[in-house]
Amino acid sequence: MDSASRLLVRWLDELGQITDEPGKLTRTFLSPAMRRANRQVGQWMRSVGLQVAEDAVGNLRGRLEGRKPGAKTLLLGSHLDTVRDAGRFDGALGVLLPIVALGELRRRGIVLPFGVEVLGFSEEEGVRFSSAYLGSKGYVGQLRASDLKLCDAKGVSIANVLSEYNRGHYALPRAARRSVELLGYVEVHIEQGPVLEAEQLPLGVVSAIAGQSRGRATFRGKAGHAGTTPMLLRRDALAAAAEFVLLVERLARTTPSLVATVGTATVLPGAPNVIPGEVVVSLDVRHPRDGARRKALRTLIAGARKIARSRELVFEWQLTQDNAAATCSEALSRMLETSVRVVQKRSIRLVSGAGHDAVVMSGLTPVAMLFVRCREGLSHHPDEFASPADLDVALRAMVDFLSRLAATYHEQ
Amino acid sequence: MDSASRLLVRWLDELGQITDEPGKLTRTFLSPAMRRANRQVGQWMRSVGLQVAEDAVGNLRGRLEGRKPGAKTLLLGSHLDTVRDAGRFDGALGVLLPIVALGELRRRGIVLPFGVEVLGFSEEEGVRFSSAYLGSKGYVGQLRASDLKLCDAKGVSIANVLSEYNRGHYALPRAARRSVELLGYVEVHIEQGPVLEAEQLPLGVVSAIAGQSRGRATFRGKAGHAGTTPMLLRRDALAAAAEFVLLVERLARTTPSLVATVGTATVLPGAPNVIPGEVVVSLDVRHPRDGARRKALRTLIAGARKIARSRELVFEWQLTQDNAAATCSEALSRMLETSVRVVQKRSIRLVSGAGHDAVVMSGLTPVAMLFVRCREGLSHHPDEFASPADLDVALRAMVDFLSRLAATYHEQ
Repeated sequence: MDSASRLLVRWLDELGQITDEPGKLTRTFLSPAMRRANRQVGQWMRSVGLQVAEDAVGNLRGRLEGRKPGAKTLLLGSHLDTVRDAGRFDGALGVLLPIVALGELRRRGIVLPFGVEVLGFSEEEGVRFSSAYLGSKGYVGQLRASDLKLCDAKGVSIANVLSEYNRGHYALPRAARRSVELLGYVEVHIEQGPVLEAEQLPLGVVSAIAGQSRGRATFRGKAGHAGTTPMLLRRDALAAAAEFVLLVERLARTTPSLVATVGTATVLPGAPNVIPGEVVVSLDVRHPRDGARRKALRTLIAGARKIARSRELVFEWQLTQDNAAATCSEALSRMLETSVRVVQKRSIRLVSGAGHDAVVMSGLTPVAMLFVRCREGLSHHPDEFASPADLDVALRAMVDFLSRLAATYHEQ
Repeated sequence: MDSASRLLVRWLDELGQITDEPGKLTRTFLSPAMRRANRQVGQWMRSVGLQVAEDAVGNLRGRLEGRKPGAKTLLLGSHLDTVRDAGRFDGALGVLLPIVALGELRRRGIVLPFGVEVLGFSEEEGVRFSSAYLGSKGYVGQLRASDLKLCDAKGVSIANVLSEYNRGHYALPRAARRSVELLGYVEVHIEQGPVLEAEQLPLGVVSAIAGQSRGRATFRGKAGHAGTTPMLLRRDALAAAAEFVLLVERLARTTPSLVATVGTATVLPGAPNVIPGEVVVSLDVRHPRDGARRKALRTLIAGARKIARSRELVFEWQLTQDNAAATCSEALSRMLETSVRVVQKRSIRLVSGAGHDAVVMSGLTPVAMLFVRCREGLSHHPDEFASPADLDVALRAMVDFLSRLAATYHEQ
């Protein structure tokens, strides 16, 4: 399948040139570059025989009817927006690879018994409105009127943007599909982490997408002169925060599948000769099971309170984000795993620590995800890279998966 | 001595009104407010019989001749500049209290056998030129031509400022006094720390002024996605820095007289969902003995390297400041201690963790320092406060000390 994977590499490169910011890759919700990207990807969809449409929130849809009239539909896709100064694989790969795979099946004269819809979601990264999954939420009918009031940095609301995009004719979208019409949703995505590289495997199957809790932990002690305040009279907020950082690391290291991170620290007043009086740190906790994540969070907050108490500090916790985990469909994942074993012998399951459109789609239909190895786990960066060889393996796995699902469907 | 201490309180209040910034107390090196402060304090000096002069770096000197011709001179003083938005005791107390004490001796008809010079140094806080002790350095002849090239935020050099202040006639000052002419230097200062308050004592005698090392410690690991990077593949710079913060605290808590502080932390890239790739923290280490301070610093840097190594991070250390300790004269301190016991029964010795003019003066003559309790150890703040009752105790101790020194001197 060399020619098909070469086509995929070329399309990824070409799509990576379509940007709102010259010199770097940036495409945000309903921006001019997103319009151009949809036009280009729409052309590629047509080139393999898909019927192309765009919905009210800018999602691109390419449909291939199944052999049987009234057959169910398999959804394949990911998002076409990007972070600022992005790489060219995150999102794009999950839209373009299915198109190339369908082209390959067509070349082989294979007609699938079920319908297929390739989805290019218009928004997943949350760059413009600090709210992610606008595309897939629109697709499944989860966008609420309150979501549309969110404004970008210039004060323009999502409602304004949607109204302009649809030339004034705009209503809150309802679910594009009913669950009973669907076979499921399969998303191909670069791993954005180092596990496959460490395992020396091109592909892995996602078992679950971790739920995520995020918040701000504040330790309030007493500022003081670094030279004149004896150690035993100090109420050093940074020393307390340091204990907390190590507690977070220790718990996550000893709890299977838990990842927990302190990524920011603000130290006040922040002078070399002043004992820190207040420190605010961020906490990000993720786990594939919601119960385990909530338990870890409770343990960490209780631990922080204990640290603060033993140092006579005040502790405050503010939860800023709380997303449930999404479990992948066992049936779809097993079939995906079989296809992965065909192309690379061994398959592993891994948890996705990052969120994906599959999280939202799991509310509508069973989901599965195929991860592709990326260099050094790097993502959200212009150096983001998945090798042509790995893309070829992924493409072959997808073709095998579609054929395999067709065989199963046929038997039903 | 109620009337004398009431006078002291009034003078502190009045001097606290003389400022470069309306609404807050700020007096910097050779500023208009410093000229006015020198004029006002000069008047108060004259009112108790001192002969007043000002030197080329703006130090105010009030001289009282001794009874014996050719007698030695005791120096008493502190600084008249302030930090921005300062309290009214830091510095001012050490200039005004000796004047009031000399006034009290005069009222009692006591003439000291030795000469006394009350010094109001023009600069100690390092606000304008980020270089401290300009006044006392000028007095002892330690200012170098290279020091004068330092510029303030507007690009005006110390040389420019001194030249203008002296109407163009300006040369590097030589030492104002030779060591053989002097009995010593005694500085009264608020503690700027919480020890006397914790001990419930108005006064304490300083045993030494701690030496100080300051620098920047950098831990360089690898940034990564907080959701997709497993705990065991992380090289988290903040976790390493947290271990270091706790090592600093632990060493200082277990090493007598050592204080060590991490007062700042910069976390990069600094996002809740990104593992910190680089953290820079400040380190401030103080000890009354230089050897012990240097040993502690070596231990901490070695510890930081070990932490970094065990986590596969890079560690860098940059020393930014290194000041030697100053030991107080045992003879003067003992006499001061006797006077303190007269006025408050019990006396304690304490280390000054903050620097003072006495550090520079110790290069010229034996020094001693008397600390006065201040509320909550607070200093460099408008709420800085020493109670009138404590000031009265300090004044009585100083009068006792001068009488006691006079008696000893007489016997010589």
